Amino acid sequence: MTNSKLGTNAVAQIGVVVHDIETASRAYAELLGIEPPAWFWTDAADKAKTEYGGAPSEARAKLAFIDLGPVQLELIEPDGHPSTWRDHLNARGEGVHHLAFVVEKMKDKIDALEKHGIPLQQKGEYTGGRYAYMDSSRALKVLLELLENDR
Amino acid sequence: MTNSKLGTNAVAQIGVVVHDIETASRAYAELLGIEPPAWFWTDAADKAKTEYGGAPSEARAKLAFIDLGPVQLELIEPDGHPSTWRDHLNARGEGVHHLAFVVEKMKDKIDALEKHGIPLQQKGEYTGGRYAYMDSSRALKVLLELLENDR
Repeated sequence: MTNSKLGTNAVAQIGVVVHDIETASRAYAELLGIEPPAWFWTDAADKAKTEYGGAPSEARAKLAFIDLGPVQLELIEPDGHPSTWRDHLNARGEGVHHLAFVVEKMKDKIDALEKHGIPLQQKGEYTGGRYAYMDSSRALKVLLELLENDR
Repeated sequence: MTNSKLGTNAVAQIGVVVHDIETASRAYAELLGIEPPAWFWTDAADKAKTEYGGAPSEARAKLAFIDLGPVQLELIEPDGHPSTWRDHLNARGEGVHHLAFVVEKMKDKIDALEKHGIPLQQKGEYTGGRYAYMDSSRALKVLLELLENDR
């Protein structure tokens, strides 16, 4: 039993926005003694149904994942369309963008966070699930990402 | 057996620099449904032997730790003396400052990283161990912290 508004306190991913995903992947791979991970594009708008700031966006990003033991590192190279990733890169430069948590009942969690003063910033879908970025930057100094995977 | 230059790929801590550790601790505690953690000062220079950019520094910071499941969140409110924490706050504002890894043979790890183009930025001691911040910001977009605990 947890009193967490997320239903969990276990961070699952650390998301880092970068200008060049291949260069960043190689740097991590060389440090960690692993093969550089393959990257892939997020789905196009018709599948991803991306909304940023309440409006549909064509935004996509290249993603690559690297295991850091108990959590995953997610490297993110956004395209030029409006997104939380692109705005972070433009405003703050490369670096950690979010901490992700795997949740259940996504809609309830979004509602609870919004009531708590942490508004939805971006949401979208991927094969097998959906995500929501919550703008917790003022309170937590980093964004929260909620991930809900289909069973 | 790992080929990692750290001897491990398992991240242990996510370090976040903040202007006000009590406000930030409370925000995390409210989100996660826990009691706000107690904060404490890092040791003074005579014990911590802090070096930043190769020179001794009087820098101290208030620290607080929160469990995020498999990893720890470290909140850091630095004082005004020269440090990696203070410089990050002044230059980039509040947010994630480093990812920490628990290592063995600290000196060998620092040497290997420096040979790999990731220089030592700050080091110091704490009761039961020592730390080193390695300036991997160009390659990894975040600093690395090495932690070595006495057995």
